[in-house]
Amino acid sequence: MSINLPDFSTLLNPEIQQQTQHLADAFAETAVQRDRDGGSPLAQRQLIRDSGLLALSIPKNLGGLDGNWFDVMNSVRILAQVDNSLAHVFGFHHLLLATVRLFARAEQWQNWFQQTASQQLFWGNTLNPLDQRTVVHQQDGIYLFSGQKSFCSGAIDSDMLVASGIDQGTGKLLIAAIPTQREGIELHHDWDNMGQRQTDSGSATFRHVRVEQHELLLEPGPLSTPFACLRPLIAQLTFVNMFLGVAEGAFAEAKQYTQAQSRAWFLSGVERADQDPYILRHYGEFWLQLESVRALNQQAILQLQRAWQIGEALTAEQRGQVAIAVATAKVAASRVSLDISNRMFEVTGARATQAALRLDRFWRNVRTQTLHDPVDYKIKELGEWALNAEVPQPSFYS
Amino acid sequence: MSINLPDFSTLLNPEIQQQTQHLADAFAETAVQRDRDGGSPLAQRQLIRDSGLLALSIPKNLGGLDGNWFDVMNSVRILAQVDNSLAHVFGFHHLLLATVRLFARAEQWQNWFQQTASQQLFWGNTLNPLDQRTVVHQQDGIYLFSGQKSFCSGAIDSDMLVASGIDQGTGKLLIAAIPTQREGIELHHDWDNMGQRQTDSGSATFRHVRVEQHELLLEPGPLSTPFACLRPLIAQLTFVNMFLGVAEGAFAEAKQYTQAQSRAWFLSGVERADQDPYILRHYGEFWLQLESVRALNQQAILQLQRAWQIGEALTAEQRGQVAIAVATAKVAASRVSLDISNRMFEVTGARATQAALRLDRFWRNVRTQTLHDPVDYKIKELGEWALNAEVPQPSFYS
Amino acid sequence: MSINLPDFSTLLNPEIQQQTQHLADAFAETAVQRDRDGGSPLAQRQLIRDSGLLALSIPKNLGGLDGNWFDVMNSVRILAQVDNSLAHVFGFHHLLLATVRLFARAEQWQNWFQQTASQQLFWGNTLNPLDQRTVVHQQDGIYLFSGQKSFCSGAIDSDMLVASGIDQGTGKLLIAAIPTQREGIELHHDWDNMGQRQTDSGSATFRHVRVEQHELLLEPGPLSTPFACLRPLIAQLTFVNMFLGVAEGAFAEAKQYTQAQSRAWFLSGVERADQDPYILRHYGEFWLQLESVRALNQQAILQLQRAWQIGEALTAEQRGQVAIAVATAKVAASRVSLDISNRMFEVTGARATQAALRLDRFWRNVRTQTLHDPVDYKIKELGEWALNAEVPQPSFYS
Amino acid sequence: MSINLPDFSTLLNPEIQQQTQHLADAFAETAVQRDRDGGSPLAQRQLIRDSGLLALSIPKNLGGLDGNWFDVMNSVRILAQVDNSLAHVFGFHHLLLATVRLFARAEQWQNWFQQTASQQLFWGNTLNPLDQRTVVHQQDGIYLFSGQKSFCSGAIDSDMLVASGIDQGTGKLLIAAIPTQREGIELHHDWDNMGQRQTDSGSATFRHVRVEQHELLLEPGPLSTPFACLRPLIAQLTFVNMFLGVAEGAFAEAKQYTQAQSRAWFLSGVERADQDPYILRHYGEFWLQLESVRALNQQAILQLQRAWQIGEALTAEQRGQVAIAVATAKVAASRVSLDISNRMFEVTGARATQAALRLDRFWRNVRTQTLHDPVDYKIKELGEWALNAEVPQPSFYS
Repeated sequence: MSINLPDFSTLLNPEIQQQTQHLADAFAETAVQRDRDGGSPLAQRQLIRDSGLLALSIPKNLGGLDGNWFDVMNSVRILAQVDNSLAHVFGFHHLLLATVRLFARAEQWQNWFQQTASQQLFWGNTLNPLDQRTVVHQQDGIYLFSGQKSFCSGAIDSDMLVASGIDQGTGKLLIAAIPTQREGIELHHDWDNMGQRQTDSGSATFRHVRVEQHELLLEPGPLSTPFACLRPLIAQLTFVNMFLGVAEGAFAEAKQYTQAQSRAWFLSGVERADQDPYILRHYGEFWLQLESVRALNQQAILQLQRAWQIGEALTAEQRGQVAIAVATAKVAASRVSLDISNRMFEVTGARATQAALRLDRFWRNVRTQTLHDPVDYKIKELGEWALNAEVPQPSFYS
Repeated sequence: MSINLPDFSTLLNPEIQQQTQHLADAFAETAVQRDRDGGSPLAQRQLIRDSGLLALSIPKNLGGLDGNWFDVMNSVRILAQVDNSLAHVFGFHHLLLATVRLFARAEQWQNWFQQTASQQLFWGNTLNPLDQRTVVHQQDGIYLFSGQKSFCSGAIDSDMLVASGIDQGTGKLLIAAIPTQREGIELHHDWDNMGQRQTDSGSATFRHVRVEQHELLLEPGPLSTPFACLRPLIAQLTFVNMFLGVAEGAFAEAKQYTQAQSRAWFLSGVERADQDPYILRHYGEFWLQLESVRALNQQAILQLQRAWQIGEALTAEQRGQVAIAVATAKVAASRVSLDISNRMFEVTGARATQAALRLDRFWRNVRTQTLHDPVDYKIKELGEWALNAEVPQPSFYS
Repeated sequence: MSINLPDFSTLLNPEIQQQTQHLADAFAETAVQRDRDGGSPLAQRQLIRDSGLLALSIPKNLGGLDGNWFDVMNSVRILAQVDNSLAHVFGFHHLLLATVRLFARAEQWQNWFQQTASQQLFWGNTLNPLDQRTVVHQQDGIYLFSGQKSFCSGAIDSDMLVASGIDQGTGKLLIAAIPTQREGIELHHDWDNMGQRQTDSGSATFRHVRVEQHELLLEPGPLSTPFACLRPLIAQLTFVNMFLGVAEGAFAEAKQYTQAQSRAWFLSGVERADQDPYILRHYGEFWLQLESVRALNQQAILQLQRAWQIGEALTAEQRGQVAIAVATAKVAASRVSLDISNRMFEVTGARATQAALRLDRFWRNVRTQTLHDPVDYKIKELGEWALNAEVPQPSFYS
Repeated sequence: MSINLPDFSTLLNPEIQQQTQHLADAFAETAVQRDRDGGSPLAQRQLIRDSGLLALSIPKNLGGLDGNWFDVMNSVRILAQVDNSLAHVFGFHHLLLATVRLFARAEQWQNWFQQTASQQLFWGNTLNPLDQRTVVHQQDGIYLFSGQKSFCSGAIDSDMLVASGIDQGTGKLLIAAIPTQREGIELHHDWDNMGQRQTDSGSATFRHVRVEQHELLLEPGPLSTPFACLRPLIAQLTFVNMFLGVAEGAFAEAKQYTQAQSRAWFLSGVERADQDPYILRHYGEFWLQLESVRALNQQAILQLQRAWQIGEALTAEQRGQVAIAVATAKVAASRVSLDISNRMFEVTGARATQAALRLDRFWRNVRTQTLHDPVDYKIKELGEWALNAEVPQPSFYS
């Protein structure tokens, strides 16, 4: 019996894939050096701007490339294979676009989307909801943001910021989309970390930053409807694709090294390292892990895209299904990226630890980024679902 | 952007699913007792015959239900959730149909298929290629099979057998499809094992069993073309769905027990066992494992179905892709079924070990069946692919 | 520099080891059959009585063999290698002797010890403190025990019982040592479990069982002093030695099978299964696991013996050190025994699953017994110690 | 029964422990900065010289501190807790002393020992036997060493070198002990690695370096007798203690961080991170792992010390026992140090990844050093022992 079979490759726009790969190829040339240097990858950010891919997730009628979530996540993953810092700021840019799309009125986000597409605006993050040091005072219809914010990935060299603060009157979280150049915003060059070294995830200071009401994301507002609650799932799925990209990048480097450089161990009884039964075993495990994450990731993107297409009619239960699919992929991707970036050295050997190669950057990057929110609590969420049929309570982390 | 999204559920025939579930419900009522008894599940085999599902994988024009590989594997999985012995003989029946389909001439298999569909013939296995004690002598155009054969799953109470022997003239493996009642065939009731207790996987003796040439699978012959080489992959994928079904069955029993019977540990600080953070953690892990296998299984079936639809034009490389997808799912399913059927007790507690429940049967079944061929060598195959881009060498196990 | 080095072998009485090994050899002959049969191993219990080893842990001056905790635990381990049910009732006998030693006055336990040694009395367990269905009423200086009790290992065919009930007046747990023949005690033959099949761990009914005050363990009483609180640690360490014995027994059977029966896999490139690189890898892992548990067990026994020799002067902190050493060994032994008894089949192959061998009994036994108390909470205890320097709160499980 | 119990703490010289701890405390102050800088820790090497601990393993009658192997390994472990580069060169110094002790005539090593003790000579390594680029020509009774050598840990700033080359006449490995200042030796400052950054494990060039016969280790010669074959076991055990020290150091830093800095996750329901059930679980696992390695390490040192005291009478079988004990500890220590140095971040949280703390150095150090020889082949050795009772074939790695 012959039936029509699904072909996931048709869901991807090949042109976008190609453009992303060009970017990745360019980033790869300097990734080792830039991991050493840290700081802001200004030239690379400009390449992203020039590529047009900042409009990837923007609909055609607003000047964008009309990419679906398969396109977006795939681009994040391709960049992460060679440079997870740039994948990070690129992915967060699209996450922030989704944020205004989901939390604000159509006039608001359509306007921002058009500007972003036409001017290739880069969006940066000053939203961290767990850091509640930034407060908001209303004064004459103006909202004044003041205080500190940590983990502001991609804020430096951005054109627009999504910022948050606690309204002193109501105690509620207020989120705004504002130009990075707005007076009173200071972005500190204080990100110096063992991993994700060029994400500029340092801190920001707001000093009486004036925000107008039309810049606030009030309707429907943060995490207000099941559809709006897709936002944290897009964030988590962006992580999945970064982790998966890193795992794939580490795998690719290891493979090349084993074949080109590694020597058979003198007790192995084989001539080439790539015939060693134990080395083959490690690669078999790597493959199994990668394929598992790729399959779970594909399912999670499929669920997200389906929910996205349902739009505001999305129910809490349907949103919960997406949340579970994303959390499942998240846990798997976290573990696999850590394991491969750690174990890759066991298939390459001692010489692969020379600093010039900086092969440890894969591990350092995911070791840093997987700490965004505890994987233990993601597993617990999966358990609540598996045992008690309870979907995760929406929050900025679930 | 709104796009057409794949929906795997449309690939399954809901009527077939329902029929299989009816069978499974019937089997579940006696599964515990029959695991205790061992022996041949004659009544249950008759229920399978009566259900019409022996014709599941047979094309409509030959009188069958026209099921695709999603349908077949799904049925195997559903049966395995409650009774892995019956899933085994049911899955092997369809594997043996595929065997004649792939190894014999169209006139041959079409004829066998029609008979099978019209008479609900049950096929049994006496093929074990690693057991080379059965030899074949040609005499006046007749092939005489003589010798022993082990691991003959589902041979007892079958109507047709697929049998193999070594041609004493050429040294080649000859495979025949013959009626079980053929003179000289003795099936021994000597299967008494810790698991898969009702698969009748005992031994057979052939004493000058006369086989005519038109009963031999000579064109294209065993493992002769890439398309014919799909046979072992169908076998392996059948295993995957048995393992997955067992894992799902064990999970379902554990879940029910935790909620209905388990008590919160006195140090847990919670009132109900299903709120215990560590119990939730185990269930989260179970979910992650099950979802991984389900995703890999879906991909493997998709690849098999695609290759099946290509038919004789299938290339060795395309066949290799299916082999890798199947092997990946096989390793994952082996591990996950062993882990869940072992760990399920840690979320149920000591009282769940009472013999009346026989919850250990899940582990005993997969512990037995996963030994069919060593998982270590499946992992090595994955490694050869991942590192050296070599697809597995086709054999009856790869 | 030459120094005096510790030699743990000198801590063991070789005569006791030999006697235990004789018992084990005798039990091994019928272990498979008795695992099949379940029920009470009356003949084997008589062999234990005849061996004199019921007096193993009794001081010489009271007629015993004066064994230290190395001797006792070693005997439990040796028996568990071949028959974990008998190891269980043997180990619990000595645990119950330690119970009266630790909870009662010297006149009491000295008297019981003397009787036990002179008459080879076998002690059985009806103590389960989590089962609070047995209550105690005082009446004219007599304590009447009434109600049910579950998990009464070794009670059937015993001479003395340690029983517990909740005092209806005070709500406190009362523990008594009484002859099994005391009127009103009914031991039910209702133990039918997937593992530990000959431990008789079924239920008991007490009907107005008369207990006199001098039969109660009141001074110092249950878990009253740090020294008395060694009792649950002796129980846990007995478990460790059962688990370790099972792991060693499974290892020994697997080894013998691999060498005598297993065939090299046709893709392995080696002639004998015992040269297969992946089979060697499994055995290497088994060795590492066994050695780890053996080393942790040795340390735990050393700590227990040291604490035992300190006696009533033992401080809570010193007792806590023993508790941590025992818990560490317990977690390791639980995992290792489950892993080896599960994975042993991967180094033996499919034919080792035949029911006649009943090799699954190793897994069934530890799968059952490791559920005595949740390993998750033992790990948590280790975490409280490692992170917060808090020793476990004494209870009947810690 | 009261018996004399072993007390391992008496095997350690408390004065040496204290001195080592003083060194460690001094190294800890600058360890982070020096990990950043790389290069040679000249000041710290001088502190080692000043401490007198270079004579730790030298007998009293030759001017040394008369430390046994417990003392030596314990010192290595204590240093590794804070600075694994210095532990490395310190451990290798004593390994090289053992090398001349085991491979050379008494007059030779006694002389070298006396000089080392009286002048606090620091020994460095240019021995790497797998690198066979250095060749030896004999000329007029002089041996001329010429060629390259890689992985020369601790050679820079050393006073004596142990060097190796292949004799062009016989093809045999020749090993010499020579002053580092000998003409023709060039030590390259080319070590720049992701881990073990201050071990100076770069390369050396020999240009017609003149070596006299009395500087060659010819009697009994390298790996010539079972006793001489203890040399690689001392090397491996030194690794064990470095790995264990790193694991303990990572654990200590994590613990301090969790308690002082980590915040309870907002979904945890607890107030402090150190009450989180999942964080406690990780610490419980860390403890279990550390205790396992500590126990196996203690046994391995005990075996080495016993063999050392036997001396030249040591049999191949006895040497094999030491090899197995060391290999067991080596595998465990490799895994545990990698796991804890990786997982420590899951109990500290995202802020612990700031570059200023350089907490990634624990992982980078053991990730580098555990590649010295493949752990897979150590496991295989254990398997050969466990299954086939074959002790490892002595080599520079076993």
